[in-house]
Amino acid sequence: MSTDYQAIINRIKDEVKPLLTQGKVATYIPALARINPYRFGMAVYTINGELFTCGDAQEYFSIQSISKVFTLARVMDRLGDALWDRVGREASGNPFNSLVQLEYENGKPRNPFINAGALVITDCFIQEEQNAMSKLRDFVRACAANPNIDFDEEVAASEKLTGHRNAALANFLKSYGNLINEVEEVLDVYFHQCSLSMSCADLSRAFLFLANAGTDPLTCAAVCGPRQAKRINALMQTCGLYDEGGEFAYRVGLPGKSGVGGGIVAVMPGELTVAVWSPALNQAGNSLAGMKALELFTTYTARSIF
Amino acid sequence: MSTDYQAIINRIKDEVKPLLTQGKVATYIPALARINPYRFGMAVYTINGELFTCGDAQEYFSIQSISKVFTLARVMDRLGDALWDRVGREASGNPFNSLVQLEYENGKPRNPFINAGALVITDCFIQEEQNAMSKLRDFVRACAANPNIDFDEEVAASEKLTGHRNAALANFLKSYGNLINEVEEVLDVYFHQCSLSMSCADLSRAFLFLANAGTDPLTCAAVCGPRQAKRINALMQTCGLYDEGGEFAYRVGLPGKSGVGGGIVAVMPGELTVAVWSPALNQAGNSLAGMKALELFTTYTARSIF
Amino acid sequence: MSTDYQAIINRIKDEVKPLLTQGKVATYIPALARINPYRFGMAVYTINGELFTCGDAQEYFSIQSISKVFTLARVMDRLGDALWDRVGREASGNPFNSLVQLEYENGKPRNPFINAGALVITDCFIQEEQNAMSKLRDFVRACAANPNIDFDEEVAASEKLTGHRNAALANFLKSYGNLINEVEEVLDVYFHQCSLSMSCADLSRAFLFLANAGTDPLTCAAVCGPRQAKRINALMQTCGLYDEGGEFAYRVGLPGKSGVGGGIVAVMPGELTVAVWSPALNQAGNSLAGMKALELFTTYTARSIF
Amino acid sequence: MSTDYQAIINRIKDEVKPLLTQGKVATYIPALARINPYRFGMAVYTINGELFTCGDAQEYFSIQSISKVFTLARVMDRLGDALWDRVGREASGNPFNSLVQLEYENGKPRNPFINAGALVITDCFIQEEQNAMSKLRDFVRACAANPNIDFDEEVAASEKLTGHRNAALANFLKSYGNLINEVEEVLDVYFHQCSLSMSCADLSRAFLFLANAGTDPLTCAAVCGPRQAKRINALMQTCGLYDEGGEFAYRVGLPGKSGVGGGIVAVMPGELTVAVWSPALNQAGNSLAGMKALELFTTYTARSIF
Repeated sequence: MSTDYQAIINRIKDEVKPLLTQGKVATYIPALARINPYRFGMAVYTINGELFTCGDAQEYFSIQSISKVFTLARVMDRLGDALWDRVGREASGNPFNSLVQLEYENGKPRNPFINAGALVITDCFIQEEQNAMSKLRDFVRACAANPNIDFDEEVAASEKLTGHRNAALANFLKSYGNLINEVEEVLDVYFHQCSLSMSCADLSRAFLFLANAGTDPLTCAAVCGPRQAKRINALMQTCGLYDEGGEFAYRVGLPGKSGVGGGIVAVMPGELTVAVWSPALNQAGNSLAGMKALELFTTYTARSIF
Repeated sequence: MSTDYQAIINRIKDEVKPLLTQGKVATYIPALARINPYRFGMAVYTINGELFTCGDAQEYFSIQSISKVFTLARVMDRLGDALWDRVGREASGNPFNSLVQLEYENGKPRNPFINAGALVITDCFIQEEQNAMSKLRDFVRACAANPNIDFDEEVAASEKLTGHRNAALANFLKSYGNLINEVEEVLDVYFHQCSLSMSCADLSRAFLFLANAGTDPLTCAAVCGPRQAKRINALMQTCGLYDEGGEFAYRVGLPGKSGVGGGIVAVMPGELTVAVWSPALNQAGNSLAGMKALELFTTYTARSIF
Repeated sequence: MSTDYQAIINRIKDEVKPLLTQGKVATYIPALARINPYRFGMAVYTINGELFTCGDAQEYFSIQSISKVFTLARVMDRLGDALWDRVGREASGNPFNSLVQLEYENGKPRNPFINAGALVITDCFIQEEQNAMSKLRDFVRACAANPNIDFDEEVAASEKLTGHRNAALANFLKSYGNLINEVEEVLDVYFHQCSLSMSCADLSRAFLFLANAGTDPLTCAAVCGPRQAKRINALMQTCGLYDEGGEFAYRVGLPGKSGVGGGIVAVMPGELTVAVWSPALNQAGNSLAGMKALELFTTYTARSIF
Repeated sequence: MSTDYQAIINRIKDEVKPLLTQGKVATYIPALARINPYRFGMAVYTINGELFTCGDAQEYFSIQSISKVFTLARVMDRLGDALWDRVGREASGNPFNSLVQLEYENGKPRNPFINAGALVITDCFIQEEQNAMSKLRDFVRACAANPNIDFDEEVAASEKLTGHRNAALANFLKSYGNLINEVEEVLDVYFHQCSLSMSCADLSRAFLFLANAGTDPLTCAAVCGPRQAKRINALMQTCGLYDEGGEFAYRVGLPGKSGVGGGIVAVMPGELTVAVWSPALNQAGNSLAGMKALELFTTYTARSIF
């Protein structure tokens, strides 16, 4: 049975329209606060190489926490299981920027996708790669097959200026000996990775290797091994949507990763990836219309991992 | 490609043998503490009706928290979304019997599988069914197609005598108005449901409807709707192994539910169920050899939802 | 310099009048909820045997948590330092009925005045005394030199019926092995001790030994040793007003103990005791007008321990 | 009755000698880690101007958190009650450098003596005073009547280099909007105030105003008002010894303030101050022999506020 993805995402775009006014754009980064909250884009990429898009699917936006998947993929590849001495892999049950758990658990972040864990991953990445920042950009460009992807320096500078909570986390990690590089350097790379500008089309393309056992299905390049791809998907399932991971599993039923820029990417292993963007967020910090769009997507395609 | 499940589980049985001595049998219930820790059984049931067993797969053991899936399935069917006003669906990030989160979140348990949440589900079940205890037994017997399944009154009595922590949870829920029935009654049903004695073969049979979109593939009886089956699987994925849910997702990659009796059941949607029993537990309270057996199972069958 | 205590408490009575309408009577115990919130009484007892009263100072009310001082005095006298293996002596920084800290600290309550700690003290008292309930009543009658003091059975029954939070605490303590007697028995004595009916005059009389190094200044009976009296005062200072202990130290500057019945007793070592009653409570569960009355008392008498 | 303070402190010095080897010198600041752990000094200053000293009472050491009393006294004098919008006055029930409570309570520290609260006080001080650092030094010199008191630049630099935990706290406060000045500036002043080098004799002299209702009894200069002095004493009683405040009240019975340099100062209102120094700390971070010395002091002098 062939699924008409184009018809489905068009229909979804119409149906979520009333939701676009209900969320709130992230305001803590001035450069993000200016975004038009009514934007909506969606892209589906099958492992056979078909791309379906609608709305603002080609528009660049700030991928923010979605970038954590890219650094994790690289670091898992390099460090293997040694990584798990420094970061756990359980859901946190707490907001993404919480320091509480970090204190109770002596500076070992619960998982690589809460901010504390992502800072540790970035620290690992800096250890493993010279010129970490440009290496990361090159990797993302290669995954997305788009050489124009770049950091948004205004967003990065803006985060640096207002990122006291992340500075608190990084200093806290350092006090526990769980940052090797200097706080300033880790934050600099971290703020840059979060500032990467990509479109839904880019993101769906860049995540294809996770739907295809670690290998880019279009170039046949091995991005990571099959076990690692499976494990990154498991980690996204468990911890990819902060403290709304259960809600996402319950309503959508796919591993996914969200960012406060309003993007969410999900993976249907063996079949496809789907990326959605709508900048207005719900109270948990996830795209309000994006959550609904992905819920409708698995309903209309009758596909889920469960 | 046909998979030789029998060969695979036989091989697993051999390979986990050295692990049988490493865990610790639960001692807080005297009736459980007497179990021989070296027992090991495994059963695979495909939705085509093929059953593969090895070791002590026909041996009865105390299913304990695995029973929470049966009450949840019934209550979801009866109450629908109203259920979620009383219990959440996020991973707790805390031990299964923790009261901390319950206090911070004003008496609404994080999910239906931590003890506090399961007590609420049992309370709902009592509200919905007269003679709740026998109704529950009948339901489990029907799912497992085994009329001999029964409560272990010694285990139930033993839990009642020593279950001060659960009594604390139930009273705490009651103080928040989140138990409708009397504390004593809810605890009585709860301790009985946990005392149900079943074998790996029983459990793999009883969970088949969750691998088959809610319908028992052998009797064609609809146990629940397809959306509910998918959602129960999602909930097991998120919260089924207490604070080791991420570990289980990472290593095994299937939705599952464990009990302190040493049983774990997992579901491969559209294909099969697999149940394992080994009474010695790891520090998180899950079967130590059982976790490894299921990890090997998805490795050797190259099957996972991710 | 002789202080005109009568004039001072009369003046205070007038000044706190506007506050009587601002608090809220405790409603979780039906028998308490019926109290007229505008009652106000105050009594000062000097160690020279002078008693000054105003308003409803001879009216009986439910002393509730103030009773914890009586059980503690008895248990400290009997057990000595062994007591501190089972309960700490630090401020909790949490509400009086919190279970959170108890879980983090493995069932050892922070201090004898939070509910969990008081339950342990009552458990010790039962261990030490046969017929604990009547022994406690006799002790309080002797301290207050009033043979008419008694339990209010209606209040005790009412607490039993609605005391799920205390039942949760007692079961939780039991699960940690920090209750020796049966949960039901400890709760029964505890609910009775809290139901004791006394007046401000009674309470100021009964606390005199704490202002006089452990010896009743009027009968010359040694209630406890001088070191113990000093230590009970220190414990009241640290933990006597729940999570408002710092506020009370800052504003009043005397060791004291409050109850949700609206009573507060404070001790000026070497000089006097002062008891106040006004049933309407502030958000922390302490008598709103009572707090102000004691603040004015130390201001107008220019007396404080600091 | 005249008390022979000299004989008492000499006796105490002998009696605590065996304890000097039991604690551990703070090692997180390299400059402190080099201190000889067997040093011991003690000084008593009466409000009549008599000074009694023994051992290393004239030796300079790093006063660390004791400095928080000086900044607080200044800021209370300037800001009055407005201060309490930014910081509470309850015991924290948590370690002095905890971030947990700060997160649960939205960036308002529990009290002015935990590190987070002290950073807020320092921030206030910077707001109120130009050249905050030298103003603070001048104030301390005046209180102690010793123009040679100074910062220890090596200690200050050492704290800056390793003070990631304090940097985390300061950034965390900033993220909640509860620091007005730049993080770097607040930390710089804070690390300097903590580095102040003073002797027991200096400290006992400098705290005299708190034993004399706010007025320096020797110069008759009003350092703060009588109500403020009483309140600072109350705050020290409640929060001056971190999570050992209850222990200190129970064993010593005086308001006091400790520092990780091994100093403790206590106040007997209306009579005297007493300072002790012994660099080896107990597990709570307070001077092990110092705690005992003060306990013996109130025992032998039969003086306490309770």
